[in-house]
Amino acid sequence: MLTGITFDNICQAAQRIRPFAHHTPILTSQTLDRMTGARLFFKCENFQKVGAFKIRGATNAVLCLSDEEAQHGVATHSSGNHAAALAQAARWRGIPAYVVMPDNAPAVKRNAVARYGAQIFPCAPTLPAREAGLRDVVAQTGATIVHPYNDYRVIAGQGTAALELLQDAPDLDMMLAPVGGGGLLSGAAIAAAGFSGHIRVVGAEPALADDAYRSLQAGQRIEAGPTNTIADGLKTSLGDKTFPIIQRLVSDIVTVSEEEIVHAMRLVWERMKIIIEPSSAVPVAALLCGRLAVAGKSIGVILSGGNVDLDRLPW
Amino acid sequence: MLTGITFDNICQAAQRIRPFAHHTPILTSQTLDRMTGARLFFKCENFQKVGAFKIRGATNAVLCLSDEEAQHGVATHSSGNHAAALAQAARWRGIPAYVVMPDNAPAVKRNAVARYGAQIFPCAPTLPAREAGLRDVVAQTGATIVHPYNDYRVIAGQGTAALELLQDAPDLDMMLAPVGGGGLLSGAAIAAAGFSGHIRVVGAEPALADDAYRSLQAGQRIEAGPTNTIADGLKTSLGDKTFPIIQRLVSDIVTVSEEEIVHAMRLVWERMKIIIEPSSAVPVAALLCGRLAVAGKSIGVILSGGNVDLDRLPW
Repeated sequence: MLTGITFDNICQAAQRIRPFAHHTPILTSQTLDRMTGARLFFKCENFQKVGAFKIRGATNAVLCLSDEEAQHGVATHSSGNHAAALAQAARWRGIPAYVVMPDNAPAVKRNAVARYGAQIFPCAPTLPAREAGLRDVVAQTGATIVHPYNDYRVIAGQGTAALELLQDAPDLDMMLAPVGGGGLLSGAAIAAAGFSGHIRVVGAEPALADDAYRSLQAGQRIEAGPTNTIADGLKTSLGDKTFPIIQRLVSDIVTVSEEEIVHAMRLVWERMKIIIEPSSAVPVAALLCGRLAVAGKSIGVILSGGNVDLDRLPW
Repeated sequence: MLTGITFDNICQAAQRIRPFAHHTPILTSQTLDRMTGARLFFKCENFQKVGAFKIRGATNAVLCLSDEEAQHGVATHSSGNHAAALAQAARWRGIPAYVVMPDNAPAVKRNAVARYGAQIFPCAPTLPAREAGLRDVVAQTGATIVHPYNDYRVIAGQGTAALELLQDAPDLDMMLAPVGGGGLLSGAAIAAAGFSGHIRVVGAEPALADDAYRSLQAGQRIEAGPTNTIADGLKTSLGDKTFPIIQRLVSDIVTVSEEEIVHAMRLVWERMKIIIEPSSAVPVAALLCGRLAVAGKSIGVILSGGNVDLDRLPW
């Protein structure tokens, strides 16, 4: 029994977010099956609201707030998909969202967050400045901070993506998810363990941001250093809530190179005709790299998101 | 009663090609619904085998050949999706495919056709040279020419895309398809008329290749002149088999500018996270341009294909 979160929490989260998040489709690809020798089931969270699985955790967290908490709003200093997701989730509940964002964040990200109705607080582009900015916002507003991954309500929400995949794809032997802070991977691991005792859960990580791999090797959390991996959603380090879950329930972390990520991303665009962001290509690269025994297996792959700047493609 | 092809032919084609072509999914988009005021159902032929609806017509035509005809193979001088589709269909039947292709055709197209197993005959990049090359190939091999659109077996095959859309999307008021040579649009029109008497079928065409629009206005076929429209699948002119069907069953042709096509294509990539080729963006542009009364209607849109050179995007 893991502290703080159970399979039931994921099932409850699924009920809670059902009116808001999409039940995303599963796609298959004969080309990728042939290349890997496996039967692959791609869970298309790139088709999800706000373009990423993050809406699941953010919505579950926002809906778990008491009315008293909710009226003061929610806050984060993420600048990526979590910020957009939190803004959308807050709007659904009719409460304010406050996002502290570095003043050098790309306009495309700032616009996405603003489009979902969040109030943006610019800050200097350093972690201390972001944390100080968030403290100020909370002091002023009484908002509840919703962490992008180190929060059981968020983890339970992200686990619903895996739960749907398990329900819709028959008899999986293995499930792959990308790992950054570990919210998606830990939620997926709890979902898989609760659904069946026989499904191996594997994380996929950029070699340039391999803190999860090194943390599992070391048996303790190791922080990610600064990194320029193209998989910008996976730069974060595991949290003290996600690490123990992953340590206990995830059998392997496969790391892949930047070249492997770009190759896998382009392959999915060309052959599956769907747009995935680099972070989503990381588990695909893990399947293709030959460092994981996949032949003959039925494998679920979570394609985590599809938010890409079409003016800055990596090829 | 139109000569040469009926609703039953489309239903038979659907049975015939079922083991080979995908029954493609329908996607919806709240963003595009909001932008148009309509309920849109996108038939994703970009997810089809060889990346385009063309596999339907080519497969139906190849499967309609007698064994005697089939053993000599099939031939075409298309250099686009039809050539790849015919090659794949021939391979499924285990017969040769011969493709006459201008020697300046992009490598990406030549490779696609070669990948599906066709034998390629290079020729000079003019229509007379292509037609002469095709005559030579047929004289040498006895192959049957399968025209990309002016062939009732091909039209019936293309109509199966519309048939699936009609079966899967509830109570459509209107259906939109791009129009080049008219195989898809005429097949869709026959499918819609046979399915229900109340569905308006509209063609969408680049203003730079508006021969279908002008032909309907004039009441007779007008050839498309040379054109550089980005929608390279739609440069061809209506045939003598497709024109009468369109004249009788299609209520409108909407023409759109190059800018409208590129805008619609990018919008679908960004918001729906799927890859469509410029020809597929033409009906989307027709919906967005405001020149068609769509508010409050349920509208099926055939996204015809997803074959794009990712190194040469139009933005």
